[in-house]
Amino acid sequence: MSGKICSLLVLFFLLPNVILAESGEKLWLRYLPLDNAKVVDYTNAIRSLIVAGDDAVISAAAEEFQMAFNGLTGNDLRKVNRPGAGALLIGTAENRLIRDLELSKDLEKCGPEGYIIRTVPVRNGQMTVIAANTSAGVLYGTFDLIRRMQTGESIAKLEVIESPAFKIRVLNHWDNLNGTVERGYAGHSIWFNRPEDWSVRSAQYKFYARANASVGINGTVINNVNADPNVLTAEYIEKYARIADIFRPYNMKIYMSVNFASPAVIGGLENSDPFNPAVQQWWKDKAAEIYQSIPDFGGFLVKANSEGQPGPMDYGRTHKDGANMMAKALQAHNGIVMWRAFVYEPGDDERSVQAYNEFMPFDGEFEDNVIVQVKNGPVDFMPRESFSPLFGGMQKSPVMIEFQITQEYLGHSNHLAYLSTMWKEVLDAETFAKGVGSSVAKTTDGTLFNHELTAISAVSNIGRDINWTGHHFGQSNWYAFGRLAWDYDLLSEDIAEEWVKMTFAHDQKFVEPVVDIMMRSREAVVNYMNPLGLHHIMGWDHHFGPEPWTDIPGAREDWLPRYYHNASEFGIGFDRTTNGSNLVSQYHSPLNKIYNDPLLVPENLLLWFHHLPWNYRLQNGLKLWDAMVYKYYEGVDEARLFQNIWDRLEGYIDDRRFKEIQFKLKLQTTEAIWWRDACVLYFQTYSNLPIPSELERPIHDLDELKELKFDMKHHN
Amino acid sequence: MSGKICSLLVLFFLLPNVILAESGEKLWLRYLPLDNAKVVDYTNAIRSLIVAGDDAVISAAAEEFQMAFNGLTGNDLRKVNRPGAGALLIGTAENRLIRDLELSKDLEKCGPEGYIIRTVPVRNGQMTVIAANTSAGVLYGTFDLIRRMQTGESIAKLEVIESPAFKIRVLNHWDNLNGTVERGYAGHSIWFNRPEDWSVRSAQYKFYARANASVGINGTVINNVNADPNVLTAEYIEKYARIADIFRPYNMKIYMSVNFASPAVIGGLENSDPFNPAVQQWWKDKAAEIYQSIPDFGGFLVKANSEGQPGPMDYGRTHKDGANMMAKALQAHNGIVMWRAFVYEPGDDERSVQAYNEFMPFDGEFEDNVIVQVKNGPVDFMPRESFSPLFGGMQKSPVMIEFQITQEYLGHSNHLAYLSTMWKEVLDAETFAKGVGSSVAKTTDGTLFNHELTAISAVSNIGRDINWTGHHFGQSNWYAFGRLAWDYDLLSEDIAEEWVKMTFAHDQKFVEPVVDIMMRSREAVVNYMNPLGLHHIMGWDHHFGPEPWTDIPGAREDWLPRYYHNASEFGIGFDRTTNGSNLVSQYHSPLNKIYNDPLLVPENLLLWFHHLPWNYRLQNGLKLWDAMVYKYYEGVDEARLFQNIWDRLEGYIDDRRFKEIQFKLKLQTTEAIWWRDACVLYFQTYSNLPIPSELERPIHDLDELKELKFDMKHHN
Repeated sequence: MSGKICSLLVLFFLLPNVILAESGEKLWLRYLPLDNAKVVDYTNAIRSLIVAGDDAVISAAAEEFQMAFNGLTGNDLRKVNRPGAGALLIGTAENRLIRDLELSKDLEKCGPEGYIIRTVPVRNGQMTVIAANTSAGVLYGTFDLIRRMQTGESIAKLEVIESPAFKIRVLNHWDNLNGTVERGYAGHSIWFNRPEDWSVRSAQYKFYARANASVGINGTVINNVNADPNVLTAEYIEKYARIADIFRPYNMKIYMSVNFASPAVIGGLENSDPFNPAVQQWWKDKAAEIYQSIPDFGGFLVKANSEGQPGPMDYGRTHKDGANMMAKALQAHNGIVMWRAFVYEPGDDERSVQAYNEFMPFDGEFEDNVIVQVKNGPVDFMPRESFSPLFGGMQKSPVMIEFQITQEYLGHSNHLAYLSTMWKEVLDAETFAKGVGSSVAKTTDGTLFNHELTAISAVSNIGRDINWTGHHFGQSNWYAFGRLAWDYDLLSEDIAEEWVKMTFAHDQKFVEPVVDIMMRSREAVVNYMNPLGLHHIMGWDHHFGPEPWTDIPGAREDWLPRYYHNASEFGIGFDRTTNGSNLVSQYHSPLNKIYNDPLLVPENLLLWFHHLPWNYRLQNGLKLWDAMVYKYYEGVDEARLFQNIWDRLEGYIDDRRFKEIQFKLKLQTTEAIWWRDACVLYFQTYSNLPIPSELERPIHDLDELKELKFDMKHHN
Repeated sequence: MSGKICSLLVLFFLLPNVILAESGEKLWLRYLPLDNAKVVDYTNAIRSLIVAGDDAVISAAAEEFQMAFNGLTGNDLRKVNRPGAGALLIGTAENRLIRDLELSKDLEKCGPEGYIIRTVPVRNGQMTVIAANTSAGVLYGTFDLIRRMQTGESIAKLEVIESPAFKIRVLNHWDNLNGTVERGYAGHSIWFNRPEDWSVRSAQYKFYARANASVGINGTVINNVNADPNVLTAEYIEKYARIADIFRPYNMKIYMSVNFASPAVIGGLENSDPFNPAVQQWWKDKAAEIYQSIPDFGGFLVKANSEGQPGPMDYGRTHKDGANMMAKALQAHNGIVMWRAFVYEPGDDERSVQAYNEFMPFDGEFEDNVIVQVKNGPVDFMPRESFSPLFGGMQKSPVMIEFQITQEYLGHSNHLAYLSTMWKEVLDAETFAKGVGSSVAKTTDGTLFNHELTAISAVSNIGRDINWTGHHFGQSNWYAFGRLAWDYDLLSEDIAEEWVKMTFAHDQKFVEPVVDIMMRSREAVVNYMNPLGLHHIMGWDHHFGPEPWTDIPGAREDWLPRYYHNASEFGIGFDRTTNGSNLVSQYHSPLNKIYNDPLLVPENLLLWFHHLPWNYRLQNGLKLWDAMVYKYYEGVDEARLFQNIWDRLEGYIDDRRFKEIQFKLKLQTTEAIWWRDACVLYFQTYSNLPIPSELERPIHDLDELKELKFDMKHHN
């Protein structure tokens, strides 16, 4: 007996590791075989497929499900025509098979893109139904069911009703026509200046569309907001049309960033003044031309009079004038204008207060198909900012949030920083616009201000790298953005767990510690880069690494770190109180008072709103200097801990991805120490206070760090 | 040349340490010589004294200043009659010398106890004036000037106008007539059952009165709120009268805790029913008897129908009935009733909500000379609680806060815990009673609700120990309470610095690290005892050490730790949300919503308001279990750091106090580890989660800790 056990054990240990190397190119859509128990469960529940509908979208849904089912269970589905035990019926409300189920009451809650998944009794057993008002809803429902199977959930008794929180859920690619990607850290553009055959590219675009559809993203702007006017030439319109054809079965609309000066630059007009009838006509004609090729074209995204981009103010007009002119050109085609509020100029007003000041006067004065796109924070996409006061401020015109998936300020593709926690922090933030219960999410999803047009966007982090995002964990942010855009009440942790299971492995001994790293990762980055509300102290131009000391002769003050940290022998931080730049007054009561008072402001925004002496005492009794230093060290400790945790997870996933991630985590710790030492040593030249004695000494020397120069442009 | 330097160095090192051992008995009133430069400055500024007035209080002020000046500078002051260069003139407004200075406008701001300190020009130079409307004001002004000298401030150009925030600033002694002190950790009572001669005792009482006057405390209740009826017998009234005589020159009133059942117990009446005319008459007679002996007697403090004490509800009457009966007895004599709202009974309502429910119906129904005394937190004096919702809740009747100086729940006299930061946290807490700007302080100081009667109190920490408070740093809490009662806008740090300089030494190399320890100390205690809003998990009855596991058969549930921590396999914390005991609804909007939402509630009150699963994620991404464990370890790390810092300060102060404090800090670390290990290991039996791998392992074993039993009663 014991001999038998022994030889079994030997056999077990001699078995080759069968986990094959993976590149990450399949994202969370790997569809690899599940364990036997799950296979049995799923093939018991579903054995055949009935597709009640025949358009391209529902066909894509059917194809996806068959592929997923085959991959996950090793079994093919029979295609049948009549409901019966073990069938999966997918279809739209107008189809007779769905009508017979009398779901209309519930379908009313689903809107145009929502869906129902339900287990219903039939003769001899039960079947599963995915029903929706449109094929798009069926597609999203199908991906929902697939996700349940991918994550090992039971599908024996389903009762799901879903609809998305925002109508438009869109990615912004900052891709230039020459193939570079602004703030891209995963290789060059997948869209532009590509040498590959169309067959290769179109396969990739289809995968991209599937990935987006799987998380509910229904649109994408594929070129940079710093837009090249040439994108409006026939050559590019044709390119866009070919891509749109691939997107269409996945309910993805294509949008375009346009340059406000296009009429003059490529249209040969005298100017691009929005009050010039020729300019107005030019945009109308251009819109008609686009819609000729792309009937479901989404619309324009515009960065105007911002960081040197042309705009209506070049002609003495306003943002309203510019946006409304474009809106009118698109109205006949149901296109929209996403007009960015990311505006600031050197001048009397501090950067963070300008967008609000500039846009609030136009509240309610935009055309119905204009939506104002606002970055989550009033400065930029810092690791932590207060939310932009335009959320809850602007009430009559619709406002959409712009997040940044690409990690411009959070470690590029070197650092593991799971951003769902950051986005949830903003979406859940209380604006008090209509008293308690006025979260940022509710100010933008139509709940509070009854807008029809609702949207949410995020700057993409993908490029031509084999794993799409440079860092394997960058994929999780693409995934999480989609999931939150659909339902911001999801927990970051649950989203992380789904993603880990689909992307890596199901074993809880792997899943739990990895989710733990993810959940702690953003705060770790904040701590080693920008604790206590510090911000904008990264390297000049490329934004890589710490440069609190940067001084570029002749540079705009509001592009220099010292504008933001204000470190001196007295103290540190940005005074945005009523005594300072007065950003606080742009918030509703009581937030205006809470932010204005260093006793009441949340500790993690202390230096965002206040300039305080080095020996200022925090509520926990620590001196500001000590508290700041502890935070920097805490960030590094966390990065080290992530390495430690990851190292113990070897063997749970394929060796390739394990080692690639291991390498990145090591790099993250190295760079975390760089940040910590640079900031602590630099600020110490002002505070003249010691690093608490129980902490390890800095590894680097300040002068050595100051000498580091990086010849990089946007990193890709 | 180098030989000379060498021998000077040798000489320096050979000099004996001239710092004499100190016992701490002189508190912060040591009046030891300052360094030469200061002596020169002060004797330049002040060389003579003019006392414009001749009552006992102004005489005490003059005596104090002469003693202080002599001690600090080694010089005696000439007593003179006419203003001139180098004079210090102290006097009240009606005195001609003060009238001549035309200060009446400024004196209007001072009220009955405030004062002006001003440098005024005279022929041949300048003189210093302390002026006030009453002798009491002169006394407080004199102590202010002394404090400036004690702390080395310049007195060459003074321009001070002060008045106290609260009218009544009172200590509560929990001293029993048998000489024990409930929750006293510094020896037996200084008031009762004392064998010493009156000369010895009266000298101590005078020192006590001086110490209180030096920080503005103007009243004291010398017996326990769990009051012995015998305190109202002639024997004790005479004792009180003798003590009151000593207090009088220091503007200190004496108050008495009384037992509601006194008429029956010592008066021989049938009952103590407040509606019984005989009872009412008994109290009137008793008040007259007291005022006969003590014309400036302050009034009564009453704990009724609370923790077994008798009260009006024993006769079907209410708190209002009881308080008003006593109030009427005192009205003719200008006495007041401080009626405690610390009430709770086992029953349907959770402990923390009961005081509000029981007292709010009587808002506005008390006599004018009744003030409701409310503990800072709704449960008790835990290391951290939310503030009691009666602050800002009760608006028509005046409310006073009761703090606890004695460290019942913060390490007794073993732990260094500077409590000013805790009290400031409460005083500064925003109630939103009348929108932003309605701090707890402003709800009780007359600002918001226009009450004439305002007061603040704290339970004293003193006893017969030579240094008064057991722990030398316990003195700082007595000191800080007085300073905050006078001016709650003072910074805890500035108060600490004053106290350290007066109590120990002026050298900034000593002062700064010691102030740093003090400022961090309360949060450290919170962390190793009760992080994240945990509370009431201390030892049964004596409240010493951790006992989260306590189970006493037949004990009241609301006296057991499990009632408060609710640890289970699911999670931990007290649900006081709208789904739980609903304490949240007793707060004004938006606090009610903020506290109700685990996303919005401050992290340090998370488990005070919420019962959450062990894997609940905090805003910083940490799991609740991990976050809690980190906090426990952080607390211990801080205690260790305090030792480390203190050890490096040897030689700055006398060896006796240095070593005594060193010993206590060691004890504090030992007990911090005990708390940490006990709580982490105990809660781990529910969470079944590991202690994060990078942390040291617990030193103790849970079973071993559970066996510890202490046969102590109130510790003194």
